[in-house]
Amino acid sequence: MSQWKQIQQLDMKFLEQVDFFYDDNFPMELRQVLANWIESQDWETATNHEAMATVLFNNFLLQLERHCTQEQNFLHRHNLKRIFQQIQQRYKANPQNLSAVISNCLREERRIISAASMQEQGPLEKSMQN
Amino acid sequence: MSQWKQIQQLDMKFLEQVDFFYDDNFPMELRQVLANWIESQDWETATNHEAMATVLFNNFLLQLERHCTQEQNFLHRHNLKRIFQQIQQRYKANPQNLSAVISNCLREERRIISAASMQEQGPLEKSMQN
Repeated sequence: MSQWKQIQQLDMKFLEQVDFFYDDNFPMELRQVLANWIESQDWETATNHEAMATVLFNNFLLQLERHCTQEQNFLHRHNLKRIFQQIQQRYKANPQNLSAVISNCLREERRIISAASMQEQGPLEKSMQN
Repeated sequence: MSQWKQIQQLDMKFLEQVDFFYDDNFPMELRQVLANWIESQDWETATNHEAMATVLFNNFLLQLERHCTQEQNFLHRHNLKRIFQQIQQRYKANPQNLSAVISNCLREERRIISAASMQEQGPLEKSMQN
């Protein structure tokens, strides 16, 4: 199961933590639309490698453009087009910033999934001790 | 049929005109989520009446808050919560601006629907003339 699917299955109190770090720097639509592709890239390494970050940034825009073109729903297409322009404008001078933002979001998601998993394990561990 | 439903049935070249006037001043999510309610209010009059604009603004936020609470989809709820905060912040000092923005969007939509309708009637009129 993708990390993003795991996130969506969390309880409300954990989802509210996820809400907190998705904003205009990295809109949640992008996380959802490109979920698998995003998770298969090495954003952490790209944060410290300009050439790699530039390639990832350009691929990111290509992936997003493809989704814009294929999207049939008017509202979703409108949102993706606006987000494409915003992301292009925001990161074209420094693609490493995008890598850093995405890397941070993925790390925070893993932390929250881990915290939720620890909470679920609590009662089981207790019952095993009894 | 609501005006918003008519809009969504237009050809791509007309939809692209609609794209143009929905931005952060009045995100398209709001137009879609509150479509019928928005169309049943008198935004044009409120543009020139502060008290009426304030009542409409508060009702707008109430309607939006209700949708946020009821929305089950994580991404949509996240977006509506963010839009709620943006709209509240942007218009709380001058609710008449929101009335003016919505009034203008509805007027532009009617203009585009009318233009699309004229274009459709074209070939029929020609065939009646022959």
